[in-house]
Amino acid sequence: MTNYPVLLAGEWREADATGAFQAVDPCTGEPVDGSYPVSSRAEMEGAVAAAADAADALLDTDAGMRAAFLEAYADGIDANADEIAEQAHIETALPLSPRLRDVELPRTTGQLRQAATAAREGTWMEATIDTETNIRSRLGPLGGGVAVFGPNNFPLAFNGISGGDFAAAIAAGNPVIAKAHSSHPGTSRLLAEQARAAVEAVGLPPATVQMLYRLSHEDGAYLVSHPAIGATGYTGARSSGLTLKAAADGAGKPIYLELSSINPIFILPRALESGGEELVGEYVTSVLMGAGQFCTNPGITVVLASEASGRFIAGAASAFEEAEPGYLLGERVVSGLGESIEALVACGAELLTGGKPVEGEGFRFQNTLLRVSGSDFLQQPEALQREAFGNAGLIIEAADEGELIGISKVFEGNLTGCIYSDSEGGDEALYGPIARSLRRQVGRLLNDKMPTGVAVSPAMNHGGPFPATGHPGFTAVGIPGSIRRFAALECYDNVREDRLPVELRDRNPGGGLWRLLDGRWSGEDVS
Amino acid sequence: MTNYPVLLAGEWREADATGAFQAVDPCTGEPVDGSYPVSSRAEMEGAVAAAADAADALLDTDAGMRAAFLEAYADGIDANADEIAEQAHIETALPLSPRLRDVELPRTTGQLRQAATAAREGTWMEATIDTETNIRSRLGPLGGGVAVFGPNNFPLAFNGISGGDFAAAIAAGNPVIAKAHSSHPGTSRLLAEQARAAVEAVGLPPATVQMLYRLSHEDGAYLVSHPAIGATGYTGARSSGLTLKAAADGAGKPIYLELSSINPIFILPRALESGGEELVGEYVTSVLMGAGQFCTNPGITVVLASEASGRFIAGAASAFEEAEPGYLLGERVVSGLGESIEALVACGAELLTGGKPVEGEGFRFQNTLLRVSGSDFLQQPEALQREAFGNAGLIIEAADEGELIGISKVFEGNLTGCIYSDSEGGDEALYGPIARSLRRQVGRLLNDKMPTGVAVSPAMNHGGPFPATGHPGFTAVGIPGSIRRFAALECYDNVREDRLPVELRDRNPGGGLWRLLDGRWSGEDVS
Repeated sequence: MTNYPVLLAGEWREADATGAFQAVDPCTGEPVDGSYPVSSRAEMEGAVAAAADAADALLDTDAGMRAAFLEAYADGIDANADEIAEQAHIETALPLSPRLRDVELPRTTGQLRQAATAAREGTWMEATIDTETNIRSRLGPLGGGVAVFGPNNFPLAFNGISGGDFAAAIAAGNPVIAKAHSSHPGTSRLLAEQARAAVEAVGLPPATVQMLYRLSHEDGAYLVSHPAIGATGYTGARSSGLTLKAAADGAGKPIYLELSSINPIFILPRALESGGEELVGEYVTSVLMGAGQFCTNPGITVVLASEASGRFIAGAASAFEEAEPGYLLGERVVSGLGESIEALVACGAELLTGGKPVEGEGFRFQNTLLRVSGSDFLQQPEALQREAFGNAGLIIEAADEGELIGISKVFEGNLTGCIYSDSEGGDEALYGPIARSLRRQVGRLLNDKMPTGVAVSPAMNHGGPFPATGHPGFTAVGIPGSIRRFAALECYDNVREDRLPVELRDRNPGGGLWRLLDGRWSGEDVS
Repeated sequence: MTNYPVLLAGEWREADATGAFQAVDPCTGEPVDGSYPVSSRAEMEGAVAAAADAADALLDTDAGMRAAFLEAYADGIDANADEIAEQAHIETALPLSPRLRDVELPRTTGQLRQAATAAREGTWMEATIDTETNIRSRLGPLGGGVAVFGPNNFPLAFNGISGGDFAAAIAAGNPVIAKAHSSHPGTSRLLAEQARAAVEAVGLPPATVQMLYRLSHEDGAYLVSHPAIGATGYTGARSSGLTLKAAADGAGKPIYLELSSINPIFILPRALESGGEELVGEYVTSVLMGAGQFCTNPGITVVLASEASGRFIAGAASAFEEAEPGYLLGERVVSGLGESIEALVACGAELLTGGKPVEGEGFRFQNTLLRVSGSDFLQQPEALQREAFGNAGLIIEAADEGELIGISKVFEGNLTGCIYSDSEGGDEALYGPIARSLRRQVGRLLNDKMPTGVAVSPAMNHGGPFPATGHPGFTAVGIPGSIRRFAALECYDNVREDRLPVELRDRNPGGGLWRLLDGRWSGEDVS
């Protein structure tokens, strides 16, 4: 069996391993060929030191080189799309087509190319020039590597070596130390090979991109708090994320988290009445998409108890029963989902369908629908907001409009919140107070659509109040916002012009750079 | 003796006090008339609850009202400038004129007015509209009060009730709970009276501005981590700041810190040679200004050992001896300065002049100059970076250029770093490597000027890497940057137009609002 090396300072090197692991095929529960190392602390420290040197060397490269790298990398992924998507399919059991090959992979290369364009234009850095005082500032790189921990559920678009955090950190001028997720090391390896080749082709410092497969929990915490690290991006489970947050916070190191979210949906009475089967279809599709393993999966849906809600619930339950359960990403996802459902039932939720692992080969769980009354929910709102990561949904039936509004006030921080309302205006009286509550609890407020689509677009917010993320002001998806996370504010006071970064000199370097010139956004030179 | 009340929900109310304290006149060491309460936890909780209600009520006011409040407040301070400055002088012993009356007070009202203009225009909120996806976002208020802890050294411009954090939090649409600094409660009271009157005159929710004078350390930590708090701004000592940071971080609440900073200055050899007495004068003025009680006070100055450095040091020492020591803000500043100087001497710094408290009435310390060799500094760089808050400076004499460069690499995060270099280009070879090191360690890099001036200007960065602050991407001074700290990213996905905030509707509301429209900054309507 192959023992795969780690990517350090531009080379695939035999690991200084303290252990080894294999990926597992979720369809069979059997190990996938090839063994991946758990890196030692010394190996991790070596990566951090090499990244710090690369951060310094990157100061001598221009943004165009970083952009060229991102584009060459995207081209490399595209040229090997079939192999990469196939490996991701083997390791995650997510559908090869359209999901991996036709949606997630193009999304991934699209993100890399958007980041390249942003790096080249430079508007993301918010260059600001005050002519009267001759003070000039911009966002610039952090001065150390950015550690990126990818999650299990998007092996390409959120991978530590190819996803949104990776692209953003590189665009801002930082090297990346990717921590691949243990559930898809082979996919990460294939991506890293393309990244390494692109670094070499463009001539960036070799340690601009490094990758380790696994660290002990202690070494992970040490990595994010290391004096020579610039910042960390983490997408994944809440408990691990909070452990890393505590370590990074204690060292004064920025860490951007994307943790759990149950993404509440309110379907207001008139919209529910007129929505019929179409609405059931939208709901079922959104809950079961990717076997429910989406950060923006609608975990809780709130309706007013009525004949219409009865029909909606019955329709959803029947669709859940008819749909073939998808494969889950790992054994731990199956057991975690079971534990969450058990906990929700213990708090008074009624199991309408599903609730058990699917017998036989592979990691599957029955499509699971739960129901709870509004009054029961309001008695234990925290416990009943427990995330059931996977193909499961909880529907809350409120007894009256007051209860519906009351429920809208008790949610923790979430990535999204959604309100379906009557297109003729019949739900307006309820919309106002519910939107007002949700607005402060979610990063993205939606009308009349499910939250599972996350467009890569400048106005997107894939973020939200704690504990959905660690800070309510930042987004993990969408450029330029995502880039600004991995940057420090650099101010130049009376610095001689030839010593300034090109973006801050009198002459606008062109290429689409917007600057805040004496308080106005402008593409002009300083006159 | 008067027992002063606290400002809660728009009214001066008798405090629920667990203790009381008085201000002390630093010139005499005697208490200033009037007693101020230490608030109970219940009182603090009441303020937090009232602020949360006010945060909700503020959603129904427009930015113009907040702007009108900030301007009315500035007018009220101006109309009572003599009384306020006089009270600040009594409580801090900072010079009445020009410092308090003619510099800090106009700076304070200027900040409030700049924040008003920014609130009215709205460009700070970075409204972003993607027409193809119909996703729109902007920065908006946090949904809870912002706690602002002011420092001892700027009783007006950084006061929790009137300073930069206050103005920024209000401009972003948040209510403020000000924690007045215990060294100038009377000044804070006079300011709060003007704030209260302006809130009433404009018709904002009464709890938009509240003020408490003192809390126990436990209650302070609870305040910044309270579930109903939006965020915290803190300027002050490092140890207290780090305690608050740990509490806020643990609760996932944003906290913006401005802590200690020694603001290294490098005077390169040719600049030192040609600088002569003028340079000595600049240095001495900057170190002794406000008795050295500035966040941007130059604590460490690095020169190459030479005849010129000997003359510079001798000139500075003699000027230090001649200058009358200023009054320090409190007894604790005197003892803290003594402890720091003792610690620096214990690490090998040589005391050239000063080093002891001034005998007699009031809180004063001799102007103190220390010197250490570059090699001694490099043996204990951390211990010798200890901040000596007050009228003291440490000069490092490097033996050669390599040592000079080596020293530039070892600084902790600082607000500022400065390099004086020859105007004819004679220091260029040294400038490059030293600027490169400092750039990653400081928020603001200066050329050929001292760091003690902090212009309130959009490009200003009064921030820097930890431990100067808690995050390298934010500034406490300068608009719009300072406002963005106290905001959450609000995204609207497919939300019907009449439900959007006015800044995100198709029609640009005018008044100077810039929006990122399909990736370009624009003042136009959506077409």
